Amino acid sequence: MKLIRFGTQGNEKPGILDNKGIIRDVSSLIPDWSPEWLSNEKLALVKQLDLDIFPIVDTAQRLGTPVTGVRQFIAIGLNYGEHAREAGLELPAEPVVFLKAITSLSGPNDNVVLPPNSTATDWELELGFVMSKIAQNVSEADALDYVAGYCLANDVSERHWQLQRNGQWGKGKSFDTFGPIGPWLVTRDELTDPQNVQFSLKVNDELMQSAHTSDMIFSVAKIIAYVSQFMTLLPGDVVITGTPAGVGGGMKPARFLKKGDVVTLDSNLLGQQKQVIV
Amino acid sequence: MKLIRFGTQGNEKPGILDNKGIIRDVSSLIPDWSPEWLSNEKLALVKQLDLDIFPIVDTAQRLGTPVTGVRQFIAIGLNYGEHAREAGLELPAEPVVFLKAITSLSGPNDNVVLPPNSTATDWELELGFVMSKIAQNVSEADALDYVAGYCLANDVSERHWQLQRNGQWGKGKSFDTFGPIGPWLVTRDELTDPQNVQFSLKVNDELMQSAHTSDMIFSVAKIIAYVSQFMTLLPGDVVITGTPAGVGGGMKPARFLKKGDVVTLDSNLLGQQKQVIV
Repeated sequence: MKLIRFGTQGNEKPGILDNKGIIRDVSSLIPDWSPEWLSNEKLALVKQLDLDIFPIVDTAQRLGTPVTGVRQFIAIGLNYGEHAREAGLELPAEPVVFLKAITSLSGPNDNVVLPPNSTATDWELELGFVMSKIAQNVSEADALDYVAGYCLANDVSERHWQLQRNGQWGKGKSFDTFGPIGPWLVTRDELTDPQNVQFSLKVNDELMQSAHTSDMIFSVAKIIAYVSQFMTLLPGDVVITGTPAGVGGGMKPARFLKKGDVVTLDSNLLGQQKQVIV
Repeated sequence: MKLIRFGTQGNEKPGILDNKGIIRDVSSLIPDWSPEWLSNEKLALVKQLDLDIFPIVDTAQRLGTPVTGVRQFIAIGLNYGEHAREAGLELPAEPVVFLKAITSLSGPNDNVVLPPNSTATDWELELGFVMSKIAQNVSEADALDYVAGYCLANDVSERHWQLQRNGQWGKGKSFDTFGPIGPWLVTRDELTDPQNVQFSLKVNDELMQSAHTSDMIFSVAKIIAYVSQFMTLLPGDVVITGTPAGVGGGMKPARFLKKGDVVTLDSNLLGQQKQVIV
């Protein structure tokens, strides 16, 4: 299934994109795609629904984050060899983990706001996933059972703030609108292998990143097993898995986002995002 | 006022510690000390209450975190000169900011769990505060108006995880029970100057840290003004403000927590915490 939330900011309703490309409004049955509705049991029930009986949603509606009530937003750094090289950083022996503010989450096509005086706002195409249940010290073999589904993510990053202001990375990763996710959450019954996703990112019409998740150094299963040793993951938590090569900060000379740029993320399985930089 | 939450884990009720040292159960009126009850307006109403009409709570009850529904847990690093020196790190020109997992929050007297195979779990005495309203780009002059109140905090840290595992600090700061806060939230009407708090920490009976918040490099007001440039702070968000000198990792040889140790935090204005290491 493809879970979706539509409506103006703060007034989103839950929907499902059916296999004819029609969005169905399921809010008469499901309050929202909040953590309690992302459990394996609940999603199995939802899968039984005959979507044809639910109202059709105008596809011109704004899309919100595909899940709501997110309590933790976790990110992995340097998870593609080429990206670590372009960043001038060593390949990590184990995953680099950091937290983004949950207030940075935004809809897949919402504007991305350049912070005042920002000189180095950059894009990061990533595979995201959302947890379905509490995870503590999970084995790699069991890990994917803890995933509700997958989505595209743009881990927007202010490089100067991230790297040059006495920082831990979160400082450059947490501004409002720096976490577009969506358009959909593709549930795990439909996308069974997260290491078999193709995706790409363009700025205006120029292809900047193009990659396949089989190139991730640490797989989704490995990430869940690893992170759940250090902290408890909750249902609805969003995890993004690192960006491949091709970010602006890695170019020579570096190239960053400016007002009016349009960033497009595209995937064979996860849909499309489009953000205007304002 | 001193806001308090009492009861078994997950079943806490809101209370107020009155000026005779008696805890009053205010759950008949106030659902919980959740973000919506921490606004300046709500707390001004609560202050009008005649506490004597509310039931007395047995002081032997467990205390939970003094606030609930926390959405973001933000920490400042290296905010005392002596501590930066003992950590072998440069004095920061601007605040070091990182995020802790909200799942690390725990009651002031709950056990602190040594992670499996942990060799370097350390204490960090800190002044904490809780936000009363949404803060974005707040001026230093207005900043304290965004604070609901203050509390003691122990920023428990696994130094090996924090510093030596390809990390950002959050990895060593986010384990369950690594964020005791409380016993109370002292509201801002009662504690008007957060830079005038004395506090100390003992391990067993040995004094390890003793400091005054006037020694903070970046004041609470400065921290709010600074952090709110990089991210939006929400009502109920907990911010801890850095630890003074005297952590175990700074000793020669380094000294870390072991099973059975008792950590006691004490303050002239913020009460006492006591944690058994298990």
